[in-house]
Amino acid sequence: MSQATGVSAKFDLSAYLKERQQWIEEALSAAIPVRYPERIYEAMRYSLLGSGKRLRPILCLASCELAGGTVEMAMPTACALEMVHTMSLIHDDLPAMDNDDYRRGRLTNHKIYGEAIAILSGDGLLAYAFEWLVRQTRGVPAEAVLEVVARLGHAVAATGLVGGQVVDLESEGKTDVSLETLHFIHTHKTGALLEISVVSGAILAGAGQDLIEALTDYAQKIGLAFQIVDDILDITGTTEELGKTTGKDQKARKVTYPSLWGLEESRRQAEQLVYEAKNRLDPWGDKAIPLQALADFIVARTH
Amino acid sequence: MSQATGVSAKFDLSAYLKERQQWIEEALSAAIPVRYPERIYEAMRYSLLGSGKRLRPILCLASCELAGGTVEMAMPTACALEMVHTMSLIHDDLPAMDNDDYRRGRLTNHKIYGEAIAILSGDGLLAYAFEWLVRQTRGVPAEAVLEVVARLGHAVAATGLVGGQVVDLESEGKTDVSLETLHFIHTHKTGALLEISVVSGAILAGAGQDLIEALTDYAQKIGLAFQIVDDILDITGTTEELGKTTGKDQKARKVTYPSLWGLEESRRQAEQLVYEAKNRLDPWGDKAIPLQALADFIVARTH
Repeated sequence: MSQATGVSAKFDLSAYLKERQQWIEEALSAAIPVRYPERIYEAMRYSLLGSGKRLRPILCLASCELAGGTVEMAMPTACALEMVHTMSLIHDDLPAMDNDDYRRGRLTNHKIYGEAIAILSGDGLLAYAFEWLVRQTRGVPAEAVLEVVARLGHAVAATGLVGGQVVDLESEGKTDVSLETLHFIHTHKTGALLEISVVSGAILAGAGQDLIEALTDYAQKIGLAFQIVDDILDITGTTEELGKTTGKDQKARKVTYPSLWGLEESRRQAEQLVYEAKNRLDPWGDKAIPLQALADFIVARTH
Repeated sequence: MSQATGVSAKFDLSAYLKERQQWIEEALSAAIPVRYPERIYEAMRYSLLGSGKRLRPILCLASCELAGGTVEMAMPTACALEMVHTMSLIHDDLPAMDNDDYRRGRLTNHKIYGEAIAILSGDGLLAYAFEWLVRQTRGVPAEAVLEVVARLGHAVAATGLVGGQVVDLESEGKTDVSLETLHFIHTHKTGALLEISVVSGAILAGAGQDLIEALTDYAQKIGLAFQIVDDILDITGTTEELGKTTGKDQKARKVTYPSLWGLEESRRQAEQLVYEAKNRLDPWGDKAIPLQALADFIVARTH
């Protein structure tokens, strides 16, 4: 039996996630203490520390360990990734954007703090992410930290999640969105940040080109699977389970993978992608088990 | 006669500014070509390339040269500074913030492209600034580039311009704002980015601690003078001259330096600050002339 299919039997993912979520939340809380002017720090903390799977930081820590590095080496970057992700959620939720009132089961940032503070919270988190990862990373060559900074910038800018969000907004209300456009949206809006989350850990640990390439493939495949599952959950999940408004895609007549492929084929595609992602890491043996289990977790999740 | 008072006679600032503005605009235009999705690139270019004094990039190039470096070493950072500054203008102009229709004599970003694209343009410029300066800087040790990245993040985050904007928004409509609060607003909202603009050039060139400290003082003094002059111009200038709505501060009953000190004393304070800023650089002789002339330019400007 290949590792790709036998992972879950020998690895307690739930304990692994719980432990790392706690480390990450402690690190995030320490990274942003409340000081004057309090309101902006409170607003950033509200969205950053609410809840959340901490998937991106967990992927970063796991890939650093797979590449022979330590959790400590990758933790500042892991926190920076969550700050950037949180920025994108705060800004996406704004009235001028997706206009969402709920996120992760709680009122969105602008519903509590107002639009101006919500915009500034996002800006603050984005800028601080770069400062934090540069100032706090220890035991990593400066060149590797610079590589992570450049890739993180690339993943957020118009070449990454900003570009994906633009095309997503432009596609709203259209019923003739092509699979190519849908693919662009997701590889940019969610895929780019997932990819740097996985790859950054390995870069910090000084990984070779073969591992970087395998992790890039792995990240692209789980990124797409993640989005397909998200689309499926928007149809099959409840608002309570997900902590955000469901059925929004259908209501907005948004083109999604299930609307193009149907639910059954969408599930099959997501599973195939995860299978391939796990296989890609088989050459790294037992060290790849956490990342392989995380891939399974992505298709299995209900929220 | 000390340099501090005799600068302008031997230095053609106008030609110096014109030449550098052109270099910077060419570099900025090359940094952001239009590609898919075109709308976001066009929106970023609209605000970035419109017009503007390019004061921050010019300060960065000048301090790099003063410290023995070259224009080429500092140009990517100079461009990054203008991207970050432009981000802050786009977001400040949003309806949820200062709600401005005009900037630099043209319609603001959201008046042309809509609020969603304006928010995303700012996010894109901020993230790209970090990528650009890391990827394009040549001939500078990695540690110096990291120092610039960290300081730039610090200057933008809640510890810098975001924090200043928050207190500015909180102070709006209040007539009992203290000088201390006004000072906090300006040292953060405009001062922090001016400071890193000046200091980053010297860091890239490998400057010693004495020069970094002198430039930090210089930057803080011209930053404050800059803001005092801005407040004065809001009262004495016309909308046509400034390319933005004037009299806004008075209309909003905003506390400003002239409202606390009067126009005459405000002018005197600005001149004193510039005099001190120039004196601080006297030990560097002729090499300091461009930065000293720039200090004069700041109090002399009418727009």
